[in-house]
Amino acid sequence: MQRAIAVLDSGVGGLTVVKEVMRQLPREKIIYFGDTARAPYGPRAAEEVLAFTREIVDYLSQYKPKMIVIACNTATAVALQDIRARVRIPVIGVINPGARAAIGKSKTGKIGVIGTDGTIKSRAYDHALRCLSPRVEIVSLACPKLVPLVEDGDFHSEETRSIVVESLEALRGVPMDCLILGCTHYPFLSEMISSYMGESVHLISSADETAREISTILHENNQLAGRDERPIHQFFCSGEPRKFQEIAQAWLGAQIRLSPVVWHIPHNGSSYRNGNGRTPI
Amino acid sequence: MQRAIAVLDSGVGGLTVVKEVMRQLPREKIIYFGDTARAPYGPRAAEEVLAFTREIVDYLSQYKPKMIVIACNTATAVALQDIRARVRIPVIGVINPGARAAIGKSKTGKIGVIGTDGTIKSRAYDHALRCLSPRVEIVSLACPKLVPLVEDGDFHSEETRSIVVESLEALRGVPMDCLILGCTHYPFLSEMISSYMGESVHLISSADETAREISTILHENNQLAGRDERPIHQFFCSGEPRKFQEIAQAWLGAQIRLSPVVWHIPHNGSSYRNGNGRTPI
Repeated sequence: MQRAIAVLDSGVGGLTVVKEVMRQLPREKIIYFGDTARAPYGPRAAEEVLAFTREIVDYLSQYKPKMIVIACNTATAVALQDIRARVRIPVIGVINPGARAAIGKSKTGKIGVIGTDGTIKSRAYDHALRCLSPRVEIVSLACPKLVPLVEDGDFHSEETRSIVVESLEALRGVPMDCLILGCTHYPFLSEMISSYMGESVHLISSADETAREISTILHENNQLAGRDERPIHQFFCSGEPRKFQEIAQAWLGAQIRLSPVVWHIPHNGSSYRNGNGRTPI
Repeated sequence: MQRAIAVLDSGVGGLTVVKEVMRQLPREKIIYFGDTARAPYGPRAAEEVLAFTREIVDYLSQYKPKMIVIACNTATAVALQDIRARVRIPVIGVINPGARAAIGKSKTGKIGVIGTDGTIKSRAYDHALRCLSPRVEIVSLACPKLVPLVEDGDFHSEETRSIVVESLEALRGVPMDCLILGCTHYPFLSEMISSYMGESVHLISSADETAREISTILHENNQLAGRDERPIHQFFCSGEPRKFQEIAQAWLGAQIRLSPVVWHIPHNGSSYRNGNGRTPI
């Protein structure tokens, strides 16, 4: 049986990584877990995000994946090192790929970062960028209002546009040539963000870049799927499944013909490992 | 002592990788070997290119590098698997990174590849692209006249421009949205190539993309240079050193203040391992 890439997120944000993996590596099987019942992670305490991430990794481990992708910047900032120490397979976060792409792309070295409260407070992008290069100037901004809009599936309304504008206002006129979308939910809003920031600012999607690094590392480990693989993906979410399925199909469906199996996993507040009562919808 | 990234090429082409590594990973020490006495590799038999690559890897291994980068597409096509089996450190070629970047960037899936005779005949890009995705259409073209121009340091003349135009003529009107520069010498000519191909064709430099994958793999292996490193790079070439030094300084010097130490290593036709008579210039 084909071993999958396990992807986890607080909710639907990680689907932006999934979409790019499906496009760049169409033979790879994906198992996805969106913790929609407990999204957003951004405002939560680090210990809580760490505990949730551990639970989800334990849950996904029963499927014997070949790689774990923490497709949530908040969880990457808090839990990447911990999860790496707990499992024997490669664990990829979304922060280093975004940082690396920004350094590759930026000509001026002036780089903006937007993310959740948790991500920005952790200074994880500052650390990742400076770890690669001393020649960067970084401006960071928390945009806590954006994730709830995306989790509600509201990507196009005028109200959403005005919240995007208000969220980004502090960056107006700040010199930068790259802006890292340091939250995997933000690519859902990338047109609005780009139209506010203007053409001179190149948006770096940590989601897109992560897909490419997944490819690099699988290749390097000689673990790419074989040429005959026709993967059937699996999607799980912890909360109300209908909204999740609607967003997932709209986001993935146009390019990828796919009928995701969305499972509703009731959680009893502490652990997903008691999988009783799981029902497909 | 800081362990270096060892980079090898048939001549000056691998400097395009070096330049990007210096920009993206300014703390990393580089040891470079250009086999200028035996360039170009493109028209040579595969067995010969394999033997030369092994010799150079043996020579560079005395410096205990942490990674080997085969920054030559011809040598990557022929020798990557062999060298990987011979050494215990990561060995990176330039073909997979270019293929991966093209798949990430292309919207139409129609991808062009230009390279040396050896690279194009090996069909290494076809293999790498199809290994990632079944949804690509590939047009390949050997451009054997370009490497000698670059080794001569002739990147700007009108004669060079007309050779570039003549070399690319078979691609005129062929639908593609990405063209892989499948030879590390070609980025020296990228302005001319881009002006011939037009704005609708995105050039993918296997050199730039390789620098990024070097970063990914060092990061993944927890082998990035420490924050306090101030690397002093070393450059070796097997042929006449003055021309090499001139090209290296012109290519690397504008962005990176650096006085490369260029060594002239006389080779006795079979092996570089007898290092007698090495003299710094």
